[in-house]
Order: sequence, then C-alpha cells, then structure tokens
Amino acid sequence: MPQWDSNDPEFINHMSENDRLGLEGVFNEKDLPLLIRRQGMADWRDGVVRILDRRALPHHERYVDCSSVEEVAICIEDMVIQGAFSLSIAAGYGLALAVVDETGSDCRTRLHAASERLKKTRPTGLALQRMLAACMVAAEDALVAGESPIQAILATVDRGAAALARQGYETGRIACELLPDNATILTHCFPDRSYAYMLVEAKRTGKTLRVIASETRPYLQGARLTSFCAQQAGAEVNVITDGMGGFLMRRGEIDAFVTAADRVCMDGTVCNKVGTYQYALAAQANEVPYYVLRQSGPDVESADESGVEVEFRDGEEVVNICGTRTAPSGVEGLYPAFDITPASLVAKIITDRGAFQAAEIAAYVDAPPFVTDAVV
Amino acid sequence: MPQWDSNDPEFINHMSENDRLGLEGVFNEKDLPLLIRRQGMADWRDGVVRILDRRALPHHERYVDCSSVEEVAICIEDMVIQGAFSLSIAAGYGLALAVVDETGSDCRTRLHAASERLKKTRPTGLALQRMLAACMVAAEDALVAGESPIQAILATVDRGAAALARQGYETGRIACELLPDNATILTHCFPDRSYAYMLVEAKRTGKTLRVIASETRPYLQGARLTSFCAQQAGAEVNVITDGMGGFLMRRGEIDAFVTAADRVCMDGTVCNKVGTYQYALAAQANEVPYYVLRQSGPDVESADESGVEVEFRDGEEVVNICGTRTAPSGVEGLYPAFDITPASLVAKIITDRGAFQAAEIAAYVDAPPFVTDAVV
Repeated sequence: MPQWDSNDPEFINHMSENDRLGLEGVFNEKDLPLLIRRQGMADWRDGVVRILDRRALPHHERYVDCSSVEEVAICIEDMVIQGAFSLSIAAGYGLALAVVDETGSDCRTRLHAASERLKKTRPTGLALQRMLAACMVAAEDALVAGESPIQAILATVDRGAAALARQGYETGRIACELLPDNATILTHCFPDRSYAYMLVEAKRTGKTLRVIASETRPYLQGARLTSFCAQQAGAEVNVITDGMGGFLMRRGEIDAFVTAADRVCMDGTVCNKVGTYQYALAAQANEVPYYVLRQSGPDVESADESGVEVEFRDGEEVVNICGTRTAPSGVEGLYPAFDITPASLVAKIITDRGAFQAAEIAAYVDAPPFVTDAVV
Repeated sequence: MPQWDSNDPEFINHMSENDRLGLEGVFNEKDLPLLIRRQGMADWRDGVVRILDRRALPHHERYVDCSSVEEVAICIEDMVIQGAFSLSIAAGYGLALAVVDETGSDCRTRLHAASERLKKTRPTGLALQRMLAACMVAAEDALVAGESPIQAILATVDRGAAALARQGYETGRIACELLPDNATILTHCFPDRSYAYMLVEAKRTGKTLRVIASETRPYLQGARLTSFCAQQAGAEVNVITDGMGGFLMRRGEIDAFVTAADRVCMDGTVCNKVGTYQYALAAQANEVPYYVLRQSGPDVESADESGVEVEFRDGEEVVNICGTRTAPSGVEGLYPAFDITPASLVAKIITDRGAFQAAEIAAYVDAPPFVTDAVV
C-alpha cells in the first residue's frame, strides 16, 4: 500500500468539485475542514482506493492507496479510516477492486467474496452492510445487462457519498439552530460530518460555538480529529480526558453533550464509541441535553439493543499509548469499542428530517425525505 | 536530585523493619507490593529524603534523593509521589531538610518558609497540611526545649506513617470482608494502601478478588500503579480506559466500584481523582455499590464541598502522552485533577473504625479509635 503526501506533485485533488460533494454551492469544498472533504475520507482514483490515513492526523496528512480488496479491508480494520458512514464509502470503492482484479474465479464469485470480507471488518455499524448491499445490487444489474460492474459500483458509492454530505449539512444546520449562541458543547469521539457542518454553519451564520473534545482513548479521535476539525472550522476548542466531562457538566460549564452514533435502534437506543454512556448519565444528572447527530435516521434493521454486536478489539491497544506500554508486562487490557445508551438518556436525535425525541425516532421512516438518493 | 537504582550496591533497603511499617508482624514488608512498603513511598536516609519515582513505574524502579525543601516540593508537584497520604510523608521528611540547611535565616523562619512552600504543592488533599502542622508543633516543642527539631520532625513523620499502615490494613481488611468471594471490582486512579491491603488480605484469607483498573488519564495511575500493585498482590487484573467502566457496569460485570479519596467532607462528599464522579453515577444507575476507602475517616476541617479547592493542573499534560502531542498545535488541554461526588452516590465510606454510610461519616469522629497515634 503506497502512501502519498498531499505535497506530492502527483497528487491531484480531483475531488474539489462541489457537485461530487453534493453541497450544491453552499460551501466551497476547499473551505471545509479536511475530514469532510471527499479527499478526507476515501475516493476512487485510477483503479486504486485512496484513503486519508486518520491515524497520522493531526500532525501528518498522509494517504494510503489500496489496490486490492484485502488492503481496503485492512485499512478499515486498522482504523486508517473510521466512522460508520465514512468507512462505508471506503468499503464501497473497495468492492470495485474485486472487479479490477481478474485473477481466479469469475466476477460474481469475486464480488461475493469481497463483499463478505469487507462486511466482516467492523460489525457494529450498519452503514457498511447497506453500502455493500446496494453496490452488489448495482453490480448484478450491470452484469445482467452485459456491462462492467465497476461503473455501477462507483456511481452507487458516489451517489451515497454525495447524499451523506447533503444529509450531514442539513443535520448540522438543524443542530446549529437548536444550540444557543455562545454554547459550549462537550463531544466524544469524532462526531463526523454533521458535527463539522454544525460548526461551519455556526461560523457562516455568526453563531459562536465552543467545543470541549473528550480525547477518546485509546484511539484518541477526540484529541486528534475532533479538535483538528473544530480548529479548521474556526471554533474555539479544548481537549479533556475521558474522565473529565462529568465534572465540567456538574460545574455548569457544558450547555449540550453532542455525539454521532454508530448505530441507532428503532426504539431510540444509541450505540456509540465507548465512553458515551457515562457522559449521557452525567448529562441527565446535570440537566444537560444530549443530542445525537444521526443524519440518515435510525437503522431500520435494528429494533433494539438485543441485536447489537458490540465489537471487542485487541486489548493491547488499551495498554499501549504512542508506542509505550503503560501497564506492567503480563497485565492485559480490555477493549469494548462501543457502548449502549438507552433512549431515556437522549434529549434529541437530530437527522436530516428534523430533530426527534429519541423514543420517537422510528417516526423518521415516515417523515418527508430530505434526500431521495440515500444509499446508507 | 541524584537518582538511585534499586540494583545499585549503595542502595541499602533500611526500611524493611516491620516495626517501622507498623504492621506488627501480620505481613513481612518484603512480601507486600512495593507501593505500600516504606521504600515505595518516601523515607529519610542520612540527611536526604528518598522518594520512589512513581512516574517511572511499572517498568523502572527508580528513586529520587532530595537534599533540599525545594527539591521535595518539586517532586510532589511533579508527581514523583502522589496520593494525599503518601505525599504527606514526603512533605514531612522534607520539612526536616529546612533544619539541615543552615544557610540564611534562623531555624524557626526557615521551618515556617518550608512549611508554607510544601503546603502549596497540592491544594486539594488535607493530610499534607495536617502532617506539616504536626511536624511544626513537634519542632517548636524541641526548639523550646533547646533540642534539635530534626529528630522531633522525623519521629512525627515515622509515627504518622506507621499509623497510616495500621489504619490502611484495618480498612483493607474491612473492605475485603464486605466484598463477596469472586467479586470483580472496578477501581479508578491508585486507591493507595487500603486497596493494596485489601488485596493481600484477600490472598491471605483465601478470597478471590479480580480488579478492573481504569487507566486514569492523563497520569495513568490505574494502568501503571493500580495494576502493578494488584499483580504484586497476586490478584487477576485487567486495564480499561476511563470511558469503559460504565459500560462494564451496565453489562453486570462489576460487583463494586472502589476508590480512595483525596478529601472526604463531614457531610460525606468525596473528592477524588477526576473521573470518579462519572463512575459513581454509572454505579448508582446500575446498582453497583461504590465503596470509598478512607482509612483515617473524614477531613474534620471540611464541612462540605464549598471549601474544596479543586486543583487545575497544566493542560499540556492532557494533550501530550508519553512524549507525543495528541492535539494539533494551538489546541490546549484542560486539566481539573479532581472531581466531586455527592454522598448520595456513595454506598459506604470504609475506615479503620468501620464502614459508614456516607451521609453519616461524621460519626467517625466519635467512634472508638483504632489507632491513638494518628497524625494525618
């Protein structure tokens, strides 16, 4: 997997077209925080899937070029890219690589094997599965019509990514409207594009939002990505450790707790980065509203938490920080990557179709659509 | 400040006498976890204060020798030693260095200045202030009697340290009795000697306790000290990040949440390492009892939280881990070192005089004393 530097003369930013971003001229892509530009997620480029390496941020802007399904799968597993929606884009483009690689079995068999491999990379979010299913349907239609499935897959992913951008912006816009001017928001993990659009929309409309980013151990998305994104969006931001948010809420220093969600069940249960549940409890105890940014609504496949598989990752990631082992030799870490927050602790789930009471999020399905071409 | 390695032939472990430890033969000091041996805290040795450097643990056993008050003060500020009681021992011995250093003003003035300097090192715990006050009284008595105050100070600190060991053991014994066999306990930060004695007492009496140590960012006491101590005490131990404990409680995997406390107010309010409050909320929400180990009872000087000064430390400690900056340049950290947990979230405060309901902890003062020579 060759790596590219953005200063490399061969690096062509062909993702700067607003039409591919789907924002229809509201913002120029170059003015957006890197992590919500197309280049800041994953893209298809001349037969390779180019993924921004989030592990190297914020200090290095580095890209990984994948030319096989397996390389894309490893990037997702190793968290080169993360976030339920963003990694689904990488997986979708990754599927197209199964068509390119003509070794071995026939195209249908290769696509099926690739889809199964990519599905297994991260079990908790469902956007990944939906993206792969949509791409498989498009590929099959192309095969039946005697066409190459590559263009069908790429068009599906592009359409999905553009819809995500529009939904993310609308969700961020609604969140921005809900928050009072001069609000201080506590975040956990990286709340992805809706969060970034919330901040750029605040800037655009003259509202001041301050961010307290919980660092989010062990992968440090909060310290590395959330604060970086806030800084690029022009918001004041400070970083705390994952044990500090409750105390700040009790002192009255937080106006809202805001996260994304890797899964939202139809009963309003929220599954998000581990640490979210504790903060949601502290928010309720201190009458701080907890807003979940979930641009495309609930996961209709998921009735309640009984069907949620919480991913456990390698405990070594917990007892090693930046190359240094923290615990003594012989002591192992435990690493549940997500936790479960019941609907009763959530004030609102904010979507592209409006802000819903958590327990009423199932009404999203029948609400007037904001986009008609959503894929995930 | 020269540093000593325990393998250095000049290193003489003269703290191995059980009488100085105060345990009167229940345990041999050499069988105890390092952090509750006298050598594992601070001691006076031929005119220097030798402090185990907890920052180097668990990978290196390193000692810092201080020959001036200022060096001891810096060690406490820089967390070479931590824990409200343990650092009070270092501060007490440090005061004696003001007598040794005969430059400048007269002895009384030097002692007064040293006491003020040492008091300012950490504002939240009160054991430090009590230890210094007791040493100042002893020094003044010696001066009035025309004797050197050094021996009076050293005897006061030794007596205080021995009482702390006996109280710690009794507190650990009561905690061990309270916990069911095969209990899994969640800890936060390093709950100091009562916790260590709880584990060695469990081992001695054939009870199995399993520890989940929350890593406790930014200083990582849980990953580095608590797990190390559990390992040395023969208990099974795993490390988690500070966002994971609530999730494990919700899954029913935790039987008790156990911490020490840097301060306990007379109304049962608990001030402890930041992150404790969130876990206490999660414990209550999931019907997990929260036990506070507080060997010498409440701080009688502290009626309620209104008088608690929560120390804010340098935010750079939050955005740097093991020498690597996590957040982008220009983003600062916030670092409240402690938080406040109301009595309503605490099941029991366990002391050397028994286990109290948190709201009734003031009754400690009139309960039959377990030791009569406590200093802090």
